[in-house]
Amino acid sequence: MAVDILIKNGRVVNPSGIMETDIAINGQKIVGLGYSKTFTDAEKVVDAKGKYVIPGGIDPHTHFELEFMGEQGPEDWHKGTSAAAFGGTTTVIDFSIQNKGRPLMESIKSDVARVESLAAIDVCMHGCFTDFTDPDKIVEEMPEVVGYGVPSFKEFMIYRKQGWLIDDWTLYRVLQKASELNALVGVHAESGVLGEEMIQKLVDEGKNGAEYHPLSKPNFIEEEAIQRAISIARFAESSLYIVHMSTREGVKLVGDARAQGLPIWAETCTHYLTLTDEVYERPDGINYILSPPLRKKEDVKSLWNGLANGSVSVVGTDHVAFTMEQKIRNSATFATVPNGAGGVEVRLPLLLSEGVNGGLLSFEKMVEVFSTNAAKMFGLYPKKGIISPGSDADIVIVDLEKEKTLSVDNLHMGPDFTMYEGCKVKGYPVTTLSKGKIIIDNEEYLGEKGDGSFIKRELDPVLMAKA
Amino acid sequence: MAVDILIKNGRVVNPSGIMETDIAINGQKIVGLGYSKTFTDAEKVVDAKGKYVIPGGIDPHTHFELEFMGEQGPEDWHKGTSAAAFGGTTTVIDFSIQNKGRPLMESIKSDVARVESLAAIDVCMHGCFTDFTDPDKIVEEMPEVVGYGVPSFKEFMIYRKQGWLIDDWTLYRVLQKASELNALVGVHAESGVLGEEMIQKLVDEGKNGAEYHPLSKPNFIEEEAIQRAISIARFAESSLYIVHMSTREGVKLVGDARAQGLPIWAETCTHYLTLTDEVYERPDGINYILSPPLRKKEDVKSLWNGLANGSVSVVGTDHVAFTMEQKIRNSATFATVPNGAGGVEVRLPLLLSEGVNGGLLSFEKMVEVFSTNAAKMFGLYPKKGIISPGSDADIVIVDLEKEKTLSVDNLHMGPDFTMYEGCKVKGYPVTTLSKGKIIIDNEEYLGEKGDGSFIKRELDPVLMAKA
Amino acid sequence: MAVDILIKNGRVVNPSGIMETDIAINGQKIVGLGYSKTFTDAEKVVDAKGKYVIPGGIDPHTHFELEFMGEQGPEDWHKGTSAAAFGGTTTVIDFSIQNKGRPLMESIKSDVARVESLAAIDVCMHGCFTDFTDPDKIVEEMPEVVGYGVPSFKEFMIYRKQGWLIDDWTLYRVLQKASELNALVGVHAESGVLGEEMIQKLVDEGKNGAEYHPLSKPNFIEEEAIQRAISIARFAESSLYIVHMSTREGVKLVGDARAQGLPIWAETCTHYLTLTDEVYERPDGINYILSPPLRKKEDVKSLWNGLANGSVSVVGTDHVAFTMEQKIRNSATFATVPNGAGGVEVRLPLLLSEGVNGGLLSFEKMVEVFSTNAAKMFGLYPKKGIISPGSDADIVIVDLEKEKTLSVDNLHMGPDFTMYEGCKVKGYPVTTLSKGKIIIDNEEYLGEKGDGSFIKRELDPVLMAKA
Amino acid sequence: MAVDILIKNGRVVNPSGIMETDIAINGQKIVGLGYSKTFTDAEKVVDAKGKYVIPGGIDPHTHFELEFMGEQGPEDWHKGTSAAAFGGTTTVIDFSIQNKGRPLMESIKSDVARVESLAAIDVCMHGCFTDFTDPDKIVEEMPEVVGYGVPSFKEFMIYRKQGWLIDDWTLYRVLQKASELNALVGVHAESGVLGEEMIQKLVDEGKNGAEYHPLSKPNFIEEEAIQRAISIARFAESSLYIVHMSTREGVKLVGDARAQGLPIWAETCTHYLTLTDEVYERPDGINYILSPPLRKKEDVKSLWNGLANGSVSVVGTDHVAFTMEQKIRNSATFATVPNGAGGVEVRLPLLLSEGVNGGLLSFEKMVEVFSTNAAKMFGLYPKKGIISPGSDADIVIVDLEKEKTLSVDNLHMGPDFTMYEGCKVKGYPVTTLSKGKIIIDNEEYLGEKGDGSFIKRELDPVLMAKA
Repeated sequence: MAVDILIKNGRVVNPSGIMETDIAINGQKIVGLGYSKTFTDAEKVVDAKGKYVIPGGIDPHTHFELEFMGEQGPEDWHKGTSAAAFGGTTTVIDFSIQNKGRPLMESIKSDVARVESLAAIDVCMHGCFTDFTDPDKIVEEMPEVVGYGVPSFKEFMIYRKQGWLIDDWTLYRVLQKASELNALVGVHAESGVLGEEMIQKLVDEGKNGAEYHPLSKPNFIEEEAIQRAISIARFAESSLYIVHMSTREGVKLVGDARAQGLPIWAETCTHYLTLTDEVYERPDGINYILSPPLRKKEDVKSLWNGLANGSVSVVGTDHVAFTMEQKIRNSATFATVPNGAGGVEVRLPLLLSEGVNGGLLSFEKMVEVFSTNAAKMFGLYPKKGIISPGSDADIVIVDLEKEKTLSVDNLHMGPDFTMYEGCKVKGYPVTTLSKGKIIIDNEEYLGEKGDGSFIKRELDPVLMAKA
Repeated sequence: MAVDILIKNGRVVNPSGIMETDIAINGQKIVGLGYSKTFTDAEKVVDAKGKYVIPGGIDPHTHFELEFMGEQGPEDWHKGTSAAAFGGTTTVIDFSIQNKGRPLMESIKSDVARVESLAAIDVCMHGCFTDFTDPDKIVEEMPEVVGYGVPSFKEFMIYRKQGWLIDDWTLYRVLQKASELNALVGVHAESGVLGEEMIQKLVDEGKNGAEYHPLSKPNFIEEEAIQRAISIARFAESSLYIVHMSTREGVKLVGDARAQGLPIWAETCTHYLTLTDEVYERPDGINYILSPPLRKKEDVKSLWNGLANGSVSVVGTDHVAFTMEQKIRNSATFATVPNGAGGVEVRLPLLLSEGVNGGLLSFEKMVEVFSTNAAKMFGLYPKKGIISPGSDADIVIVDLEKEKTLSVDNLHMGPDFTMYEGCKVKGYPVTTLSKGKIIIDNEEYLGEKGDGSFIKRELDPVLMAKA
Repeated sequence: MAVDILIKNGRVVNPSGIMETDIAINGQKIVGLGYSKTFTDAEKVVDAKGKYVIPGGIDPHTHFELEFMGEQGPEDWHKGTSAAAFGGTTTVIDFSIQNKGRPLMESIKSDVARVESLAAIDVCMHGCFTDFTDPDKIVEEMPEVVGYGVPSFKEFMIYRKQGWLIDDWTLYRVLQKASELNALVGVHAESGVLGEEMIQKLVDEGKNGAEYHPLSKPNFIEEEAIQRAISIARFAESSLYIVHMSTREGVKLVGDARAQGLPIWAETCTHYLTLTDEVYERPDGINYILSPPLRKKEDVKSLWNGLANGSVSVVGTDHVAFTMEQKIRNSATFATVPNGAGGVEVRLPLLLSEGVNGGLLSFEKMVEVFSTNAAKMFGLYPKKGIISPGSDADIVIVDLEKEKTLSVDNLHMGPDFTMYEGCKVKGYPVTTLSKGKIIIDNEEYLGEKGDGSFIKRELDPVLMAKA
Repeated sequence: MAVDILIKNGRVVNPSGIMETDIAINGQKIVGLGYSKTFTDAEKVVDAKGKYVIPGGIDPHTHFELEFMGEQGPEDWHKGTSAAAFGGTTTVIDFSIQNKGRPLMESIKSDVARVESLAAIDVCMHGCFTDFTDPDKIVEEMPEVVGYGVPSFKEFMIYRKQGWLIDDWTLYRVLQKASELNALVGVHAESGVLGEEMIQKLVDEGKNGAEYHPLSKPNFIEEEAIQRAISIARFAESSLYIVHMSTREGVKLVGDARAQGLPIWAETCTHYLTLTDEVYERPDGINYILSPPLRKKEDVKSLWNGLANGSVSVVGTDHVAFTMEQKIRNSATFATVPNGAGGVEVRLPLLLSEGVNGGLLSFEKMVEVFSTNAAKMFGLYPKKGIISPGSDADIVIVDLEKEKTLSVDNLHMGPDFTMYEGCKVKGYPVTTLSKGKIIIDNEEYLGEKGDGSFIKRELDPVLMAKA
């Protein structure tokens, strides 16, 4: 059969191993894998000789167009998702946040409309309730949300001041209902009461600099919240997902829970794998203010180990696109600086450079935490997350030898700074296909607004258990 | 490209998942996987509609043409390996046992010659030293053996009377050398001193019936030996493989060692997964005499759990082909009955029936323990153990709905009885390809003597770590 | 030397063992222990032949004259403490509860005045803050309280409606300060938010009967609070005391923490060792409403094991003296029934009967959990808690064969009912000495108001580590 | 009552605490303890002002008059036991070793005769079988031995060359029988096969110096044997005692077993608590050859921790009295040097100096491991091991401030050297009473041959559980 695109001579990396095989693509799908001269006839041939070919990345934690702490960055859905594609990510899962007093579905539908007109790649949504005046109301809306293809949620155990803190009782109710609906609840696990009082105490003492940000929320603040969330999930007989986990204590808690067979998963983020809290001492320390804070070397090491041994399942970015000006304008104290930074474009380069080339992860394991596990957990597998006949042709060609010095000047995200300025990486994506279309090649964007779609999802517990 | 064979419409099961894809075969190799109409042109089309297609099985533990306890069964290499093919196994790893006073290489070469002229499928060998008069001599011969493509060994921690018991010191020396040579040592883990004295005590007391066989070697006898072997391997800084593990205590010991990151693997056998020691009370109890003995339901359950959670990596058969007459003739006491029974043909049917259809293993996990893990551990991957472009076309088509009542009359192994007489199974292999040749179809053998070859192996620690 | 009192021929039980020795008492003190005819000359001889002689009991958890949930029972300090003496308890540690807006010291001084004029035995106080509007104020008052001889506190992690719930932040601050002051903080560990919402949900659903009391606060409610409290104590680098622990999960959490060397102790109460939640199904179920609720047989068993192996250190009573009329008047729903019941008099009989005679505790271990451990933990040792030269002559003579059917008619506590009505015990105190004075003999009270004093305390971490 | 001896003004240390009390002694017994002026009338008053008074020590591991590896030291029972008394030890438990082909009782009776005529203090015996030709014979003799007051045994898991190595099967039989007879079996836990082959290998390689002694039996050799012995004891459903444990691995194994409730105890020796394997590098390294070898600092630390937390129960000395000349004469290789060294006199000084004054053990815990625990385990409590009315007046007065530099010149043991030459200690026994008689005072021996007796013993499992 003549095919549209043939990727030849590459080494294809799936979690199950590396194989030397060509990939045949017709329309939006992979239609064949073939050894040597199996496929001969193609509209277009992409030569991947000397390169690796991996499933397109899935970033389970982005915040495009988020308004938070009074600010919204200058990056729209199109800019953000095309930056993701530059970085080898072909699917993101973003968050629809309820407006208090309004149904969550209203936020979801509004976000889906933006996505459909602007996204460069496929997009899914997590739901996020914020109005806790009546837990019954939340529980009542959940079936509609899940039925709309949004079977995953995130709730905040902190941000009382922002009105986002979920109390233990409502969390319990949501977990119980999620279990009934076959949905998954994630938590931003920082101990609300303790964390915010510690912040307040520092501010009251006039300790306003960025260097107080990590001291305001030491590892314990995350540990306590994770431990409590796991307990409540156990009591609710539900599964649980810990988002952006940052501490060695968290790795141990989640690892132990998983060893006992509990359906608990953890996500960490690129910055927790590559940066430490020493940056808060720098003059531009406020640029690194995000939550949880960056940690110590021991935590970084423990997170890499957790990825390698399966205690941590997924790497996301918690991408938010504030500018330096927005950070500075709100920096009277560390507590008022808008939390968050851009990262959606650098996830793969950093995983390749420090993980694969750095010897911390096998290439196959890197593919799992970059793509496959998120696909299995969030209802996208085997449509996404694997290079296999029948799957979407979301494919990234990687040059493991390519070196690059990261800089705001050669990245494509919204903010006017990057936390990785000057960081040298080895290993970089060179071509990105989304659903059979080459949208990035040679550092050039070849796609257009609306290439991406909102993807409805349904979870599969059997697959989830393998993530 | 026109191909030799196209397996169409099947559901292909690899450890990484199940995909609906066609398989294109040219010569001895798989050359392509393709969705829907990717491949159109083939010499021969095999329709696998409604069936599952899996990598050919690897049985890491067979004893064809073994002489033991004064007896040798009536099954030659050809009969044995073609029975394996009927059961969906396309590679076996057998044992070359040193003759005391002679080099191990002599046994290996003699066995290889038999294999090359008789085998129906591919064959590898483990080495087995039995002359312990001078440990230095063993250590000196090991490099040649490994260099000949036999990088795995098995030693007996029991069978003092048969002269096969390795002492702890020689075991330590062998493990140390194996570690240096990148070889893997397996142990038959039964506590020699304790086990044989317990047997003697029972015999002295006139307790000779088959029902005393399990009492003579209670779970502790295996547990003590496994624990000691793991300790010695730890001291020798070597890896270790526990063959035919039978007890829940073993599952715990190996599981704990693996959780600590030690390079320890365990194999169990079909009979430990499906039979219990109640059979020893039956009139034909002596037919079930093998070592270790069959255990309790709790052990069976624990072994299945161990396979599911990765504590146990591989299922073998410990196939030996004694006849009823041989068993009876030596049954003055349970201690003199030749140990062992046939099983090479029923491994897949039982794993499908009790494992996959019985809900104890996912289909993917079944493929791992039936084929992929042994390939990774024993240096055969990705040549064997996976359906992927470039791999050997060792392929089995499985009908998960096919029901059969096992009987010596419809099985093809050498003995004149089977431990599974009357056992109803659901799920059966219907077609077997070995290196691109259909050798079993429709319960008919289509191959010939010498189809199989001796396969030289080299171990890969990175792959082994994934088994 | 001639002595005032000589207790002859008894078997003296200290934690270190049982010895046949006479006890010589002069004034308020034990002055000598002597074998056979060592002491001959005494003002008064008490013959303890056939009996056991133990240190007077210390009940670390009583609530005499408590007003709670709008009610106060009819028992004053004199009635309550003389009932304690009938039950072999010669020291109690009660609670001074802050009145909101007022200093805690005010409550303490008022309680001490009542004690000095009324108490039949020695009395100590724990402090209990309830005004959490400004944690700094609490932390500022703590040194004065500790300096006054009240170096132990209790805080409530539940009772939000009653205004007693301490938030995690204030608990952290109190623990930190306590650590600095060498004080010990106890917690009533029930998860406030979850527990009270569960109660409300049941009440909203019209589930008002006593049988809903245990369902409103299942084991998890205690487990979550204990786990959180231990975490916060670990973070605050402080010690911690869990009062009235009721669950097997608690036993495990505290046992594990202690095994890791953390300075954590647990107290359980007589009723958790002897009654189960089946009582809530009875017509008089409301009489058993106390917090935490009574549990299952498995919990009872686990608590006894915890005492035997040292996971649980102390047995108290949580004695509160509400009447049946008070219970009934407030029983529109289980949630409004005043929590608590009388128990100060039956601690020793039940420990003797079920513990020593029932084979669950050695006699020595019983003495530890009844007296010595509390003395060591709360700064009373070796003044109290041991029979030794130099210690206070707080001594109880026990008849291990004496049988009695407990009834409100033959007990001396304030309430008009007892949870143990009709309960047959074997083993009973027959004589009680407080500071060298025989105050109970032959079921008769021989003391008078004001025999007891308020005892100032100071903690000794070396001794505490042994409890 | 007028008493024979009154020890006044001392601080009496029992495991349960320290009390300021006088001690009244009549005949061989303690008859009273008394505060301040309780006792006034005494034949003799010993003023212990400023000193501590403790129960006389029990050394559970001595080898007086032992012949081993072809040598016997120059110390007889009287010299050895009076040296023990100088060191505050008032009871020893020695070993009666079977002569092959003869009943064990023969050795016992012969040893008892020597003891009765020579011993300065009380003496008990452990039995030690060495003739393993017929395990049935051993099992048959055990009841008579136990009935004679020798309810404890020791067996060697090493010393194959010396003919003392017990095989696993015989060990299993002995443990089983001991369990039936309420006897306790100790093991010298060094892996026989591995250890002796490692020695032989070093000797074959010409590595003969003392510095090879520790290399010949690394920690693993002890670890493997302890692990195996615990397993076999578990299988035999018996208790077990590990003698002279030397490694951190042992501490963990025994600690874990005890935490699981298994009846396992460990003894360590003075030298493992105070010396390290650096001594083997010294010119006089052969003087330190004993088995197991001295270990590393980490092991020393772990053993002290084990004593403090109860993983290790008892400190002995493994006292053997070879001379320098005997060591040197047999030093062609480290493997032929007679193993063992003197220590019975320095146990208390070293425990006081490094343990109590060094802050590693509380004084009470020191008393437990020096005296009380051995008394409880070996059937001597409360006759020995505690200062209490009715107990034997085996009493030691300790000056915790007394400093001394240990030297063969100021010690009283048989050998002409000491491993502790030049070692400065702080804390020393100044007066020793054995059964009411002052036998050491002011560094002078006041006793005579035959003061001591052979003590028959019977074990009490309830007391043993507390050691």
